[in-house]
Parts: sequence; C-alpha cells; structure tokens
Amino acid sequence: MKITLPALKIALSTNIKRLRKEQGISQEKLALKADIDRSYMSEVERCLANPSIEALLKIGNALEVTPCELLQLGKKRS
Amino acid sequence: MKITLPALKIALSTNIKRLRKEQGISQEKLALKADIDRSYMSEVERCLANPSIEALLKIGNALEVTPCELLQLGKKRS
Repeated sequence: MKITLPALKIALSTNIKRLRKEQGISQEKLALKADIDRSYMSEVERCLANPSIEALLKIGNALEVTPCELLQLGKKRS
Repeated sequence: MKITLPALKIALSTNIKRLRKEQGISQEKLALKADIDRSYMSEVERCLANPSIEALLKIGNALEVTPCELLQLGKKRS
C-alpha cells in the first residue's frame, strides 16, 4: 500500500507534537534543543517542510526517540 | 542514547541493500522504480547523501516498506 507524502508529513507532525506535549516542552524549546531554526521547526509541525534525515535525527535526539519513531504512521494516542 | 548521523546513514544504506537483494532488484532498477536519479541512489547507498523524507518515501514505496522501516537501526540479518 503506497504511502503519500502528505500522510507522512502529518504522521511526523503528529508524532512531534505528541512527544513535545508528553515531555512538556514548547516548540521553541525543542528547536533550541535540536539546534534547528525555530521557524523551520514550525514549518515541520505545519507539514510545510521536507526535512532531511539529518533534521529528523536532530529532532529525534532532542526528543530522545529514533528517527524511525518520528516517522511511525498511525501512532496510538497515549 | 544519541544516534549519530553516520550511524543513521549506515542503517539506511544497509536496509536498502538488504531489501534490494531480498527482492532481487538492481540499484538501477530501484532508482527507476522510485523515480530517483540513479547517481543519487548510489550516493544514498554509499552514505554520501542526506535524503529528505520525500526521497525516503519514494524509495520505501518502491521497496514496499515504510520510511520508518528504512531508518530502522540494527535490523537483524534475514
């Protein structure tokens, strides 16, 4: 079953927002922690960006999850 | 535990090569199937590229796996 790019972007955005809320950190704090530009971080969460694996790695390391977990489709709501 | 970019690139390369061999397709055929430039495909497999999630999605769809599976670290040898 082919996955579409919009679906992948939504999954990434949903996973980042869920992890941020679970860890109680703001988008700004995550951008700082991940050494990623704040407005780019906002674009990723609004599904407007096409991040590289390096950006995924920075975000994942900042949230202490693997890049694979960030791209997990259909993560159950905790 | 922080994951390094080289380790992530090696995992991606290893997963792509393993899946290609399991499915008996050449690098060239995968590039064609994924609608990705052949030399870029070679760079990804040689850990020289920093692919975007869109490129991961194209490669994953061509190999019929999710982008998350492509980024899995330490996949057991089948």
